[in-house]
Amino acid sequence: VRIALDAMGGDDSPRVPVEAALAALGAHPELEIALVGPETELRTLVKRKSPDQALHSRLRFVPADQVIAPDESPVRAFRNKERSSLRVAIEYVKSGAAEGTVSCGSTGALMAGGLLTLGRVKGVSRPAIATMLPTFAGEGFLMLDLGAHMEADAENLVQYAIMGLLYAESILGMEDPRLGLLNVGEESSKGRELYKRAHARLSELPFNFVGNIEARVLLERKAEVVVCDGFVGNVVLKLMEAIGAGIAGLLKKELKRDWRSKFGGLLAGPALRRVFQELDYQEYGGAQLLGLRQPVVKCHGSAEPRAVQQGIHTAVQISKQKVPALIEAKLAEYQEG
Amino acid sequence: VRIALDAMGGDDSPRVPVEAALAALGAHPELEIALVGPETELRTLVKRKSPDQALHSRLRFVPADQVIAPDESPVRAFRNKERSSLRVAIEYVKSGAAEGTVSCGSTGALMAGGLLTLGRVKGVSRPAIATMLPTFAGEGFLMLDLGAHMEADAENLVQYAIMGLLYAESILGMEDPRLGLLNVGEESSKGRELYKRAHARLSELPFNFVGNIEARVLLERKAEVVVCDGFVGNVVLKLMEAIGAGIAGLLKKELKRDWRSKFGGLLAGPALRRVFQELDYQEYGGAQLLGLRQPVVKCHGSAEPRAVQQGIHTAVQISKQKVPALIEAKLAEYQEG
Repeated sequence: VRIALDAMGGDDSPRVPVEAALAALGAHPELEIALVGPETELRTLVKRKSPDQALHSRLRFVPADQVIAPDESPVRAFRNKERSSLRVAIEYVKSGAAEGTVSCGSTGALMAGGLLTLGRVKGVSRPAIATMLPTFAGEGFLMLDLGAHMEADAENLVQYAIMGLLYAESILGMEDPRLGLLNVGEESSKGRELYKRAHARLSELPFNFVGNIEARVLLERKAEVVVCDGFVGNVVLKLMEAIGAGIAGLLKKELKRDWRSKFGGLLAGPALRRVFQELDYQEYGGAQLLGLRQPVVKCHGSAEPRAVQQGIHTAVQISKQKVPALIEAKLAEYQEG
Repeated sequence: VRIALDAMGGDDSPRVPVEAALAALGAHPELEIALVGPETELRTLVKRKSPDQALHSRLRFVPADQVIAPDESPVRAFRNKERSSLRVAIEYVKSGAAEGTVSCGSTGALMAGGLLTLGRVKGVSRPAIATMLPTFAGEGFLMLDLGAHMEADAENLVQYAIMGLLYAESILGMEDPRLGLLNVGEESSKGRELYKRAHARLSELPFNFVGNIEARVLLERKAEVVVCDGFVGNVVLKLMEAIGAGIAGLLKKELKRDWRSKFGGLLAGPALRRVFQELDYQEYGGAQLLGLRQPVVKCHGSAEPRAVQQGIHTAVQISKQKVPALIEAKLAEYQEG
């Protein structure tokens, strides 16, 4: 398997992608990686980080001297920056030279580029962004759409459910995952019209549909897969990140106030770190752009090498398990029925 | 001023409302409270909690022997339970015997009953639920709608903005409060169509409109008043409660694991408590049902007496400042313009 890795676009690129690539090559003997970015810089960095010639033989360098910044307009940036690492990586996949791509760059540009260049799986109206979110019991759940599409209809939500369930089964190894619909109450009559219609449609289909999941219990793993529209999904994702980081920041501040707190914080340090590690969703690898014809995995801009390595692993698995083909087959089944 | 206090409906009713009533009477010499609920039980409880005859003279008891449970269908429960404390309290206000009401009961039933019995302020299409939410810098911000209405249009969001700003100025004492629109990105082109239209409308009006507020920075007080539709607002509210409680729970668990963590937790206890106190939105009093003709304040089902007392205080202030009349005048101004 070969993965095109966008070596730029993250907060600490190319260091983080390069370290992740070397670690991934070490872990997967059959993996090849195409590092996309400023070639000279990447070659120097690789040499400095690893003397292992066997690894180098499974690395190739694909030059790209532009970078798409996180705040650029996704479609415009993808269209205008022909030599950006993100675009070159996607085109490398499109050309057949790699099976999938992984990037720490702009989610919007990845989605725009994925749609324009790779295209949608047959039957998919709208691809979705899916990621594992943490729960307080230690296991995460898969949530989608986290912001690919702002004006979902009930049929979109049904497709998200099918894609999410397939991903949970084939890649996350979950058996008969429960499906939930994010909502403001448990009853089927709750929420926006969109959600009432989606609830009715999902109830008719042969899924393990457990109904509405209130935000109040979202992090209690009432379902392994939770679907919602991209607007509310994006708000949920960003808010979770912000609250976790904010509480950690407040704790740090308060634990510095006096000697007693400092000493207590020092002793309780490992326990405090365990709490925030549990909630750190970097642990759960990247986000998947489900519904594109080839694997596209987005890692957090501030992801550490371990998380990017996990993203590479996920892209390999999506390719091996042929998730896009599974999605196409499953959608055809329901659309005929 | 007289406030009708629903003495039932909360998790620890009537104890909590009765204690709150006595504390509020002690703090406001001109306040009268009508305690609505099971009369004999309430009289016994009042006698037990306070021997102060002067306070008793400003208390009256309004009998109501039914309770609306939190999970009942709001409209049906309000219609069918004619002798419920929540309904009797609202009707007591409607009759003119009290200026406003405070309840720890079902938000949905309060809103349904408020609409059916008290009615909307002239010009208001949809009342909204507003509450102060905590920020990491210690000061909160007012957010609405938190779930009164699921299918908002841009005009609803504009009305929420007007109501929220008036409330922030007249009751919270904020000068020239900044207004923000919750969204998935800063640019005016972001989000659902609804949000793009609302952004355009709010930009035209003479408010201190700072534009879109991403969920990522929602708790950093980029604006004193933030508006959104009731579906996403309700999800945000519930998720914030759940994450705060969940992290506190995880911390407690981890700090019990070994002697070192236990001792550290003991020393750092005051610091840890300060963190969660900061985020405890009980500190900020209840939720307001803005856009109804008379003050209706909803306190959390698990509110403590201090929070309910704050809710009573808020209802008094809304009445004194004539917030419903201010809203009517301001809406008329913009609807003419």
